[in-house]
Amino acid sequence: MKKEIPYKIYLEEQEMPKQWYNVRADMKKKPAPLLNPETQKPVTLEELSGIFCQELAKQELDDTTPYFDIPEEIRDFYKMYRPSPLTRAYCLEKKLDTPAHIYYKFEGNNTSGSHKLNSAIAQAYYAKAQGLKGVTTETGAGQWGTALSMACAYLDLDCQVYMVKCSYEQKPFRREVMRTYGAKVTPSPSMNTQVGQRINKEFPGTTGSLGCAISEAVEAAVSQEGYRYVLGSVLAQVLLHQSVIGLETKAALDKYGIKADMIIGCAGGGSNLGGLISPFAGQMLKGEADYDIIAVEPASCPSLTRGVYAYDFCDTGKVCPLAKMYTLGSGFIPSANHAGGLRYHGMSSTVSELYAQGYLKARSVGQTEVFQAAQMFAKVEGILPAPESSHAIRVAIDEALKCRETGEEKNIVFGLTGTGYFDMVAYQKFNDGIMSDYVPSDEELQRSFAALPKVD
Amino acid sequence: MKKEIPYKIYLEEQEMPKQWYNVRADMKKKPAPLLNPETQKPVTLEELSGIFCQELAKQELDDTTPYFDIPEEIRDFYKMYRPSPLTRAYCLEKKLDTPAHIYYKFEGNNTSGSHKLNSAIAQAYYAKAQGLKGVTTETGAGQWGTALSMACAYLDLDCQVYMVKCSYEQKPFRREVMRTYGAKVTPSPSMNTQVGQRINKEFPGTTGSLGCAISEAVEAAVSQEGYRYVLGSVLAQVLLHQSVIGLETKAALDKYGIKADMIIGCAGGGSNLGGLISPFAGQMLKGEADYDIIAVEPASCPSLTRGVYAYDFCDTGKVCPLAKMYTLGSGFIPSANHAGGLRYHGMSSTVSELYAQGYLKARSVGQTEVFQAAQMFAKVEGILPAPESSHAIRVAIDEALKCRETGEEKNIVFGLTGTGYFDMVAYQKFNDGIMSDYVPSDEELQRSFAALPKVD
Repeated sequence: MKKEIPYKIYLEEQEMPKQWYNVRADMKKKPAPLLNPETQKPVTLEELSGIFCQELAKQELDDTTPYFDIPEEIRDFYKMYRPSPLTRAYCLEKKLDTPAHIYYKFEGNNTSGSHKLNSAIAQAYYAKAQGLKGVTTETGAGQWGTALSMACAYLDLDCQVYMVKCSYEQKPFRREVMRTYGAKVTPSPSMNTQVGQRINKEFPGTTGSLGCAISEAVEAAVSQEGYRYVLGSVLAQVLLHQSVIGLETKAALDKYGIKADMIIGCAGGGSNLGGLISPFAGQMLKGEADYDIIAVEPASCPSLTRGVYAYDFCDTGKVCPLAKMYTLGSGFIPSANHAGGLRYHGMSSTVSELYAQGYLKARSVGQTEVFQAAQMFAKVEGILPAPESSHAIRVAIDEALKCRETGEEKNIVFGLTGTGYFDMVAYQKFNDGIMSDYVPSDEELQRSFAALPKVD
Repeated sequence: MKKEIPYKIYLEEQEMPKQWYNVRADMKKKPAPLLNPETQKPVTLEELSGIFCQELAKQELDDTTPYFDIPEEIRDFYKMYRPSPLTRAYCLEKKLDTPAHIYYKFEGNNTSGSHKLNSAIAQAYYAKAQGLKGVTTETGAGQWGTALSMACAYLDLDCQVYMVKCSYEQKPFRREVMRTYGAKVTPSPSMNTQVGQRINKEFPGTTGSLGCAISEAVEAAVSQEGYRYVLGSVLAQVLLHQSVIGLETKAALDKYGIKADMIIGCAGGGSNLGGLISPFAGQMLKGEADYDIIAVEPASCPSLTRGVYAYDFCDTGKVCPLAKMYTLGSGFIPSANHAGGLRYHGMSSTVSELYAQGYLKARSVGQTEVFQAAQMFAKVEGILPAPESSHAIRVAIDEALKCRETGEEKNIVFGLTGTGYFDMVAYQKFNDGIMSDYVPSDEELQRSFAALPKVD
């Protein structure tokens, strides 16, 4: 007999995952390796260990070990805000009058407001374990910087955040959350680094870019004794840590005997999507199950649906290794789009390779329709979603409406990565009816593709 | 054998309270009745029903019925964000090196960011059940307005919020959350009401006050067909709905065989404190158990610790009934204090009477020490608390530190009413070291007391 499904499924503390899952281990054809941009040879552990912590560099390069133990200290930290609920969206189903069953895994119930904390604590932990003094990073919208500040405060580790100057000025609340957690937040470009000084000289009055902030954070890491650089998305190590989302989701579904038909996640750099789908994609890779997996990206920054699959720089500053991924070109500047976390030109190599092999589909959606879905969701489910997460909501609603037509009782699962409390400027534009739905032209993309690095 | 206590105790959905508890029913000496300011006679159901919904007016006047069934539709709404976790603060205990066990009931895990939603949905439900078109209310900091907007959106009820003009301008994000939920938010004083027009004429350029916003909201309710006024604190009906906090807390403690020694809550109008302590105070009233209950208020607005117990107006506009309560006088204007929710001149009649009878103690704390506690809590427990809630954190920490001295293993329970995401201006002042610790002088209070209404 099936158990009645509550509004929110919480795993017991002892049911939480004790290991992360590395989906690459079950891929026959592996994601292409990172390349050293100068030699065009695969980066070595030694090269990576100069930028990242030793253990994280190892995780980055390991595509054969399927499970990594989660250290006890990290599991204790997880217990403060995990397990996160898998919620049955009864009210949304009723509103849509759909026979579909809709579930969402909510990662916004922590002060960082998103899933980013899952990897932040892991990266901070390994830095601390290695005896480092601190870490450096960049942040755009501020979710990652907030998450890292929280993790570092907990472990008493120094945290230096280079925040894109326009965000630093326009998002003072995010900045103050980080400061409250003891982080040193510097507007980028700054005068702290050589690259910052050069850019300030070259472009007086510039309000910065994520690429520039990355370059500053990397320089700050390698030029200070006892520091390393950390990054909140795109990397394989981040997907590994974020697999906790998918593992919990699968455990909660299994507990109630629910078989997902569709799994939907928003996709920027791929950290949330990769984490959510890992165990499900793993089953598909092993031929154990089949799912419709859908990555949702903004039409304004459509790396999977309109990009090319090629080696590219991970950052606009071109200081990081080359990664093979679906990309719009590292020089692509997305138009005003209020889902800051989805404005990345590329996509995780692992997600890209799964996509290339046909294990997931991709769909792009416009801003206005995304905010319409967000508003409907907020009204009936009581959670004000982040613009990023709302991309997944849009497609989940669309699929549930299709079920209304066909009468199918599909189980639709999506990732609700975070809350929109620090995104009210975007909501204001939506409320005032002045949201942009700009989509790049083919010519614009072709120009951007032309600047891709040549790799033999 | 005692069960091991997890970081977070979640009740099962079926363990959630099915009834609210009305602590007044178990008080031998009841709180003094509300008085009609003109006749100085106890207000009647008929009088109250002109302002409040019928059912809510009944609840307001009923001091003999101990339990009220929670309607199923409200319980369904509760299930979207309740049960809220009772969290064992293991990390804080470790940080403080205390033998005390610290627990907090966290009410911030919903988009309103506070416990206010518990009463908002109840009040909106009864308005809808009565066939009304909508409700009006005022909001200062915006937590209550947000909660009411959410509840009204869920029930498809019109929601008109009069927001103190300075908050409307300085807290645009709160305003936009309400607008996203479909509320009509009007800066007060407005030109929509006679009282607003009068005040705008009398004080050109005024940025408003809570008292003025209340007067506007009440006028808007009584002058529109099918509208009633709703209020988020102070009232007995609000404490009744908020008893869900205390009932869940007690059920969670009982489930693990934990006997609370101290129960600590911040106190503004008394909605959170009253709700949290109701079932515990009820046990004390019946002689079944004993607890140290502590109400914590800001030193800048010390109604319990320095006020007088007398009949006073509930609002500065003097349109509402007179209530007997600990008060600083309805004309008292608290100095800059960043816990907006604690800046009320009076205190719930029920809480006041329990205090007068010795069932609870009160303590006042300064702003800087409150934010120091907030920051420490945020760093080790991972939640950025609301300034209001942080008053309770301050005293919980102080008590845990006393236990370190005495070696006592006390069970300390406090209410964490909400998150601080919309209070970053206050945190910024703290981070910049420019927080005010102003405390009113005795002379200032005496002047305010002199203006109390004369009641025979």
